[in-house]
Amino acid sequence: MDKRQVDAITPRDVDFAQWYTDVCKKAKLIDYTSVKGMFIYRPYGYAIWENIQREMDKRFKETGVENVYLPVLIPESLLQKEKDHVEGFAPECAWITMGGSEKLEERLCVRPTSETVFCDHWSKIVHSWRDLPLLYNQWCSVLRWEKTSRPFLRHREFLWQEGHTLHATAEEAIQRTEQMLEVYADVCENVLAMPVLKGLKTDKEKFAGAERTYTLECMMYDHKALQNGTSHFFGDGFARAFGITYTDKDNRQVTPFETSWGYSTRTIGGIIMTHGDDNGLVLPPRVAPIQAVVIPVAAHKPGVLDAAAALRDRLKAAGIRSKMDDSDNSPGWKFAEYEMKGVPLRVEIGPKDMEKNQCVIARRDTGEKTFVPLGELEETVKKLLDAVHDSMYAMALQNREDNTFDISTPEEAKAIAEGKGGFLRSKWCGSLECELAMKERAGVTSRCMPLEQSGTEGVCPVCGKKCVTDIYWGVAY
Amino acid sequence: MDKRQVDAITPRDVDFAQWYTDVCKKAKLIDYTSVKGMFIYRPYGYAIWENIQREMDKRFKETGVENVYLPVLIPESLLQKEKDHVEGFAPECAWITMGGSEKLEERLCVRPTSETVFCDHWSKIVHSWRDLPLLYNQWCSVLRWEKTSRPFLRHREFLWQEGHTLHATAEEAIQRTEQMLEVYADVCENVLAMPVLKGLKTDKEKFAGAERTYTLECMMYDHKALQNGTSHFFGDGFARAFGITYTDKDNRQVTPFETSWGYSTRTIGGIIMTHGDDNGLVLPPRVAPIQAVVIPVAAHKPGVLDAAAALRDRLKAAGIRSKMDDSDNSPGWKFAEYEMKGVPLRVEIGPKDMEKNQCVIARRDTGEKTFVPLGELEETVKKLLDAVHDSMYAMALQNREDNTFDISTPEEAKAIAEGKGGFLRSKWCGSLECELAMKERAGVTSRCMPLEQSGTEGVCPVCGKKCVTDIYWGVAY
Repeated sequence: MDKRQVDAITPRDVDFAQWYTDVCKKAKLIDYTSVKGMFIYRPYGYAIWENIQREMDKRFKETGVENVYLPVLIPESLLQKEKDHVEGFAPECAWITMGGSEKLEERLCVRPTSETVFCDHWSKIVHSWRDLPLLYNQWCSVLRWEKTSRPFLRHREFLWQEGHTLHATAEEAIQRTEQMLEVYADVCENVLAMPVLKGLKTDKEKFAGAERTYTLECMMYDHKALQNGTSHFFGDGFARAFGITYTDKDNRQVTPFETSWGYSTRTIGGIIMTHGDDNGLVLPPRVAPIQAVVIPVAAHKPGVLDAAAALRDRLKAAGIRSKMDDSDNSPGWKFAEYEMKGVPLRVEIGPKDMEKNQCVIARRDTGEKTFVPLGELEETVKKLLDAVHDSMYAMALQNREDNTFDISTPEEAKAIAEGKGGFLRSKWCGSLECELAMKERAGVTSRCMPLEQSGTEGVCPVCGKKCVTDIYWGVAY
Repeated sequence: MDKRQVDAITPRDVDFAQWYTDVCKKAKLIDYTSVKGMFIYRPYGYAIWENIQREMDKRFKETGVENVYLPVLIPESLLQKEKDHVEGFAPECAWITMGGSEKLEERLCVRPTSETVFCDHWSKIVHSWRDLPLLYNQWCSVLRWEKTSRPFLRHREFLWQEGHTLHATAEEAIQRTEQMLEVYADVCENVLAMPVLKGLKTDKEKFAGAERTYTLECMMYDHKALQNGTSHFFGDGFARAFGITYTDKDNRQVTPFETSWGYSTRTIGGIIMTHGDDNGLVLPPRVAPIQAVVIPVAAHKPGVLDAAAALRDRLKAAGIRSKMDDSDNSPGWKFAEYEMKGVPLRVEIGPKDMEKNQCVIARRDTGEKTFVPLGELEETVKKLLDAVHDSMYAMALQNREDNTFDISTPEEAKAIAEGKGGFLRSKWCGSLECELAMKERAGVTSRCMPLEQSGTEGVCPVCGKKCVTDIYWGVAY
């Protein structure tokens, strides 16, 4: 049977949700398990995460962050120390009540996030201003007992990193919160080819216990929003709740300030929904596990396999993640397979190409084919990988620009949200009432107040009061 | 107060256990938490693990292994599918009984190891001989509800990797089991400077559910054994229990064969106990987070700080993990600090050295100091790092050779075990009875039957029967 028929996926514009699930499954990124809401990250999906981790981790360390690992279990009493925090997370906790055959005196939750554990640790090790700042990060999984689930977007267990830092002053902590948002934005835009909107969450949408939550909002192909990385400034709330103090240079006992920031595997869902098409996944070259796949054409003809292997070896030597597929499947089967897997470049070589001392390179994003003299292989592949990245980024940005609208009433917002969707921009008076009214009357939530504010005056679309704050609304994953 | 006094640790020969705990704490490797038996891997301890991970992961991938991530929670029914396995692990499981506010229908355990989850996944994705072999690995933490705990050596939660592979034939699976043991041995010897004894576990000491367990046994400074990496061949037992079958090339439905292999952070305990001394940690250069620390002497004199910074920059550029300590602590304080932290090389530079265009390099392992012309810095440091590695390995090997004894009765074994300790070598008839008698009468357990067997005939020290199998006994961590 023809590979493309076997792997047929629902067209993106027919049923985006089904298209998404089809791609996750057919590209072998992820699998379901016998525990509801828990998933298996398969090799191809996990390899994307490893590449994202490497890019993130390098940038974290360049800013002085150190990695640590803290326990996966949190005693209930610890979780309860910060009031807002426990209210936000307790309903989603999974609870351990038995250890071996013994009933535990205090139940323990599997971490949904680790602010409380970091604070407990810090309360023991921080004594003097010399101990600050502490710049910690942890790569781990967290559990949130969600009611519904979708691959990458909503799991009961997902992989992420959580950074936690402690500072002598509020200013320094805020600076760190913003710095880490910039690191996330850098990876999103320059590695994942996903344009970001940087902003602040409203009080309603803030992380449980935070004074400020910064966010990156990305627009997906279907015009919905994906929150992709958040960075929180806690003030000294957690530090007070956990009794963390230090002796400053003037020998006074004072309370430090805290931040946390997290980035998770839901970004892989974002990659799929930003860049994918009707042939499957389209991977940003800088995280693609395979950047170039070499496919021998008429592989039975003398010398073809050797020629293909030589191309793969040259690409590998040039630092390009590449493989050759010399399986006995047909070239057509292979073309479909690596299209589904979103491999950015396909390098074909057959007897005719060998005669002409060339190969053919096809781009996954545009389908464009180029004949490339063999002598120029590495150089061309590198240029093409950059070109693919740039053009994927530009296409995603175009999608966002074409689908961002100014609205002046909830009804106008509703018409767009229920129609083609998009980011809806307006002024906002800052009241929770008006924010709730937008949800009620337009079916949208606040996405963020962009860091770049226009500074102009306008009116709140709900109450009509004069105000200056720019805000974005939308429907989010 | 003098740094050395503040940080005074119990001498190694006075109380080895206390010395060990002191080093873990004073070198800031690990910390206790509010949950009994659970620890915090602090930045310096975690950085050692990251270096071990990098060395392991590279070697795994070179053999074709792919990384994946499977759920942390295992339904009780899944754990029960393989009889020996559940008997071995169920008593040590931590059980989730509540998700949010809802009581779960089936309780879930936090993974103590993931054979059952891998098998469940494979039973769904394996269909044809073309799907084999599957060569998977997962970096994660596991939970074992132990009664007692010690830093790195016995945690209720520890970090490890668990490899799981599935093969068409038993031969291929056994080959993989042995291949991964070799990878572990390579890292132990050539990265961690720890000589290994490779062998097979007796039936009594095998992993729950395995047909064969291969092990690496290392001798610590106090002559006790540390099991440091195990690799298991399961035959087709798990595959049958989980109903995994595939269609072979002759179109028959057959059952595949499985392996698993694991290596954990307990190896960091092994590093400490193999190499440490009365001044603290001594780190093998190839995993030391800091390989060379540059210390300015008379730092207030003109040019000294710049000269020290220049040395650090040159070392970094040469790919050597290095830092300069320009804090206002005294050189003596710094010397003690980096000795405690086990940094392999200390590079000192002061005004007199600058005049002579040289620096001083001190080795952590031997204390030996060398004057090095600045022009030869990188080259000398690289050579010295290798020399430190070699000499640490040689010293550990010498300790093992000096403390390995042939014994011919349980009483002889007991005398040594209760005296200075060591590896006790004898023949063994193969019976469980005699193995238990050695535990009962000599207080030792079987460590392994070495892969290199002498082939000579002798008698079992317990029953006196003629037999050929060489075996090692000892007291283990």
